[in-house]
Amino acid sequence: MSIVQDPRVAVDTPADRLRLAKDAARITARLTSAEKAAALGAIADALVANADDIIAANADDLARGERDGIGRSLLDRLRLDAPRIAGLADAVRAIAALPDPVGEVVRGHRMPNGVNLEQVRVPFGVVGAIYEARPNVTVDIAALALRSGNAVVLRGGSAALASNTVLVAVMRDALERQGISPEAIQSVDAFGRDGARALMQGRGFIDVLVPRGSAGLIETVVTESIVPVIETGAGNVHVVLDESAPEDWAREIVVNAKVQRPSVCNAAETVLVLRAAAERLVPPVVAALQGEGVTVHGDEAVSSLAPGVVPATEDDWATEYLSLDIAMRVVDTLDDALDHIRRYSTGHTESIVTTDVRNAERFLAEVDSAVVLANASTRFTDGGEFGFGAEVGISTQKLHARGPMGLPELTSTKWLGRGAGQVRP
Amino acid sequence: MSIVQDPRVAVDTPADRLRLAKDAARITARLTSAEKAAALGAIADALVANADDIIAANADDLARGERDGIGRSLLDRLRLDAPRIAGLADAVRAIAALPDPVGEVVRGHRMPNGVNLEQVRVPFGVVGAIYEARPNVTVDIAALALRSGNAVVLRGGSAALASNTVLVAVMRDALERQGISPEAIQSVDAFGRDGARALMQGRGFIDVLVPRGSAGLIETVVTESIVPVIETGAGNVHVVLDESAPEDWAREIVVNAKVQRPSVCNAAETVLVLRAAAERLVPPVVAALQGEGVTVHGDEAVSSLAPGVVPATEDDWATEYLSLDIAMRVVDTLDDALDHIRRYSTGHTESIVTTDVRNAERFLAEVDSAVVLANASTRFTDGGEFGFGAEVGISTQKLHARGPMGLPELTSTKWLGRGAGQVRP
Repeated sequence: MSIVQDPRVAVDTPADRLRLAKDAARITARLTSAEKAAALGAIADALVANADDIIAANADDLARGERDGIGRSLLDRLRLDAPRIAGLADAVRAIAALPDPVGEVVRGHRMPNGVNLEQVRVPFGVVGAIYEARPNVTVDIAALALRSGNAVVLRGGSAALASNTVLVAVMRDALERQGISPEAIQSVDAFGRDGARALMQGRGFIDVLVPRGSAGLIETVVTESIVPVIETGAGNVHVVLDESAPEDWAREIVVNAKVQRPSVCNAAETVLVLRAAAERLVPPVVAALQGEGVTVHGDEAVSSLAPGVVPATEDDWATEYLSLDIAMRVVDTLDDALDHIRRYSTGHTESIVTTDVRNAERFLAEVDSAVVLANASTRFTDGGEFGFGAEVGISTQKLHARGPMGLPELTSTKWLGRGAGQVRP
Repeated sequence: MSIVQDPRVAVDTPADRLRLAKDAARITARLTSAEKAAALGAIADALVANADDIIAANADDLARGERDGIGRSLLDRLRLDAPRIAGLADAVRAIAALPDPVGEVVRGHRMPNGVNLEQVRVPFGVVGAIYEARPNVTVDIAALALRSGNAVVLRGGSAALASNTVLVAVMRDALERQGISPEAIQSVDAFGRDGARALMQGRGFIDVLVPRGSAGLIETVVTESIVPVIETGAGNVHVVLDESAPEDWAREIVVNAKVQRPSVCNAAETVLVLRAAAERLVPPVVAALQGEGVTVHGDEAVSSLAPGVVPATEDDWATEYLSLDIAMRVVDTLDDALDHIRRYSTGHTESIVTTDVRNAERFLAEVDSAVVLANASTRFTDGGEFGFGAEVGISTQKLHARGPMGLPELTSTKWLGRGAGQVRP
């Protein structure tokens, strides 16, 4: 297996790779569901078969990362070992088993003049992805794009360059063995910042660009792109404890939303407690959080009701901790809670704990976020939990897709009309 | 009726108007369908009642336009008279009568843990529009945005400044009389290019931006915007005459597609004739076009088969004439026709005339355009023809909406979850 891009084609620029992807997209768009599933099966097998090469390349990245001092949690995200590679292969097989969204007739009718009109789901064409040093995203996005009939152009973080180079080569090789153009999977990692720029400026070549990573990365991609972008990710997630919130629900939902997996975007970051419930709820909720090792950053009212609370500053309300930290504030009314959310939320997920149906329904109606919950943990905002089988990401924009995205969100539609000579009077 | 923006608020910058629109969007989002319909009814009545003021302002624009020599067809698009104002009011009433997309449950299910999950349609929030010197768009976009629960920020062409100022004032006044915040309709016309820039850079305030107008305008908006854009419009539309095309279908569809309304985006601009059919089809199709006053710009093969054909240059294949001109080229194979379309199409609409089901289905499957037709006029690509009742525009992008857009395309969705204390295991 060669790790060069493709020995038969002299490829020199990121633009060339975009062009190759666009040509290959014509092929992937017409693959049958069975062919796409077989291709993904071949990729999964190839990942396991080439685990040693992948681990060796990953070791280079890890060594470089340690020299560069990139930090422990980044190193952990970067690491690939045999079990993780097996997990990656399983994820690819799970994606292969998902229903193919392409070809679905979304709606249709016969026009009064007899033209038979159908709106059918089609692949976007070429999906671009810009992400950080998580080599699993390389495989994940490529598999999701291929399952939905798209070609893909990848730009991963430079810290994972060696790992991604081998992963892309393994996947391309697997495609070729299945008789599918390997050009359907392209990487522009080798071109550094020029690769990212080519993706963001690739009008006519990149049909949709998905940034995955930090708020800074997403901000850059949204600002610099002239191709359509789906924003994913950042979650400054709120839980509101209403006056009527039962103590057990309040405690269990807040703890679960913060602690069950603190590093992900649907983890809670701020708790807003209605003043009328503060004395009853703050002490047990703070105690439960602290019992799980969480540092509570509270306003004065919270500090006066529970020990061990760190004073919160304005910055805390805007912070997506992604760690065992949470902000807590007492608010006078539900209106104040809604105002706070309007000001600080990233529009990802918010939840209210209440037994008052008026407050629950008002919260559901008025909070302008991708997912709004009453009496459930914010951790449910997840493609798997929503029954999509896999998740492309969680969109925090309003165009095209909002909330957890499944395979259908990686497709577009087109209208087909079949007539018999009809013209417009 | 005052024509100033709003005498009660000291508004100084485009950013202020975006902020006012965002605040008003919270109100419009919660209006009932009946309230929105009543508001549009009031707007329609006010347009008719204030026709004299509108016509007077429009006369100023027309006089300025004539002095500036903006050309006859632009002057015609700019002109408002009593019948046209009545037509505008009727269009607003028709939009008021359309089903309200807001609140529709798109899908939903009960999660295994009992959380009741629903994806419901919600307004975007604030819709931005940048368009050229057609004052009817001012009313049209405002009505569509309001019917779907959105606030709107308008930026019309400077040539229509006086007309748009009065139209916006009339609509705002009508809203206020209905007890709805007039801030739901904003114009940034008074700020010139700064107004357009504020819209394009209005991240966090403009949820979607719709440019309507020339290819140049759309290109500028797509390139300079950091808010989500829906591209509409440009149509370099092709009709392919297959070897098996019946002469009457070929003639009628080509003539209808070009002549029925040449100035619109779904009018045909290029005809590709398969060589095996050229001798049979080119003479009658060219004659029929010429009989309707169309200038045919043909390649050598076309010129050799029909008199009066103007030689086509490379530029003709890429030109959206929007006039009584059409390009015509003879191609060897269906593959060549598909290659030509891939190269020159803007992805709007293409049609094939054929009785061969293999070629029809191949064309439908392989042409990557918003609307792909077999044996029907390209003029059918239209929200009204598709049964949407009104048309926001025709999207030529793949994200969010593709092809004719109705009211639902001016909405987003959000997920609502109603639980009883569920947490994630």
